[in-house]
Amino acid sequence: MIKIYGKNCVYEAIKAKSPIEKLYVLDEEYYKEHSLRNLIDKSGISFSLINKKTIDKLCPNTHQGYYAERNDYKIYNENDLESFIKNQGRILILDGIQDPHNLGAIIRSVDAFGFDLIILPKNRSASVNETVAHTSTGAIEYVNIMYVNSLPNICNKLKKLGYWIVSTDAKGDVKADGIDKDLSLALIIGSEGFGVSKTLLNLSDFHLMIPMVGHVNSLNASVSAGIIIEKFLRL
Amino acid sequence: MIKIYGKNCVYEAIKAKSPIEKLYVLDEEYYKEHSLRNLIDKSGISFSLINKKTIDKLCPNTHQGYYAERNDYKIYNENDLESFIKNQGRILILDGIQDPHNLGAIIRSVDAFGFDLIILPKNRSASVNETVAHTSTGAIEYVNIMYVNSLPNICNKLKKLGYWIVSTDAKGDVKADGIDKDLSLALIIGSEGFGVSKTLLNLSDFHLMIPMVGHVNSLNASVSAGIIIEKFLRL
Repeated sequence: MIKIYGKNCVYEAIKAKSPIEKLYVLDEEYYKEHSLRNLIDKSGISFSLINKKTIDKLCPNTHQGYYAERNDYKIYNENDLESFIKNQGRILILDGIQDPHNLGAIIRSVDAFGFDLIILPKNRSASVNETVAHTSTGAIEYVNIMYVNSLPNICNKLKKLGYWIVSTDAKGDVKADGIDKDLSLALIIGSEGFGVSKTLLNLSDFHLMIPMVGHVNSLNASVSAGIIIEKFLRL
Repeated sequence: MIKIYGKNCVYEAIKAKSPIEKLYVLDEEYYKEHSLRNLIDKSGISFSLINKKTIDKLCPNTHQGYYAERNDYKIYNENDLESFIKNQGRILILDGIQDPHNLGAIIRSVDAFGFDLIILPKNRSASVNETVAHTSTGAIEYVNIMYVNSLPNICNKLKKLGYWIVSTDAKGDVKADGIDKDLSLALIIGSEGFGVSKTLLNLSDFHLMIPMVGHVNSLNASVSAGIIIEKFLRL
């Protein structure tokens, strides 16, 4: 069970026809907020109008008057890979992102720039939880996520399926505009502290760098993911 | 007084010759970490080698063996504006960013992509504190920050000084590549919940949009700032 709270998150969950089990709305908010009320009424989801004290008790987080409970998100596994590689889909591989806020922000970018799948390792990585879902402000409803045992294995599999593996690396030798964005691409973003692991760097076809001119020259992981994903947007 | 903790943050503070008042290093870390030990020894800053129990007590945050105290960061005010507008410098205006983690991440991007100044309003905005400094992982040492009373006033002043004001706006009509990056530019990034305020949108010369193809189509504020700032990098 996943708790969804906050106006945008609940709005997107209803809009995406998520399997919502319970929905609670603060009474005064329901009467005030026409567009969300219309969506709720049309959805056919049964809901309870409750007062502030009750919703605060049910959900101690910043709920903005909206709180829902839904079944866990559908998570894919390695066996589902083939269904994502049609249409030269683009894949984002996260090599050990630890911070759930970064993962949530990356999910927003993946939705916004039309990537087809995020692959996460089962270990040493943030996984999809309530914080991630909330930080994604609803984008989690539209993004496909897969957990795998081994990132090197999945990269080798993708290579055999015609994918080009692109690591992001401060020491890289290719800029984003040097890579044809119509290729079937799997982009790898490294962890907050250590970047992309050596094994994955070694099996990558391209090492992508973001040119920088500053003193520290390291970006927040979700910012650097966003900058790179945006460059591969296909309009 | 600002507390600095964590390896990268302390490293950058020493490298940038910040006014460090006190420096504490975990003894075992000092003997293990050659590059940082060399930097500390060369800097001439007096420091104390202490054990784990003592450093944990001094600094309950994730210190990684390094903890320093320094004077507050230099914050500029409106009277300093003229010194930043030489050389067609680029300015980032943050219209009400609330989350200190977003502000810290934006400071990293501003350092990495060579903007000259961040302008923040005195009210209704995150301001530079320890969380911001820490999240910037040292970039705060190199980025100029100004607090002003009124963003509309400073924008009007900048316009008179030959600056072009560029708002980011989901309903904007210009893409980044439609703006000459050699112009004197002040980019405005809106707040997490509400975007750029109407007053600032009205006095902007360009309304910049980031094309997106997703369902939710809203980005984390620091991600959208990073994507835009990167596009105006001058190499």
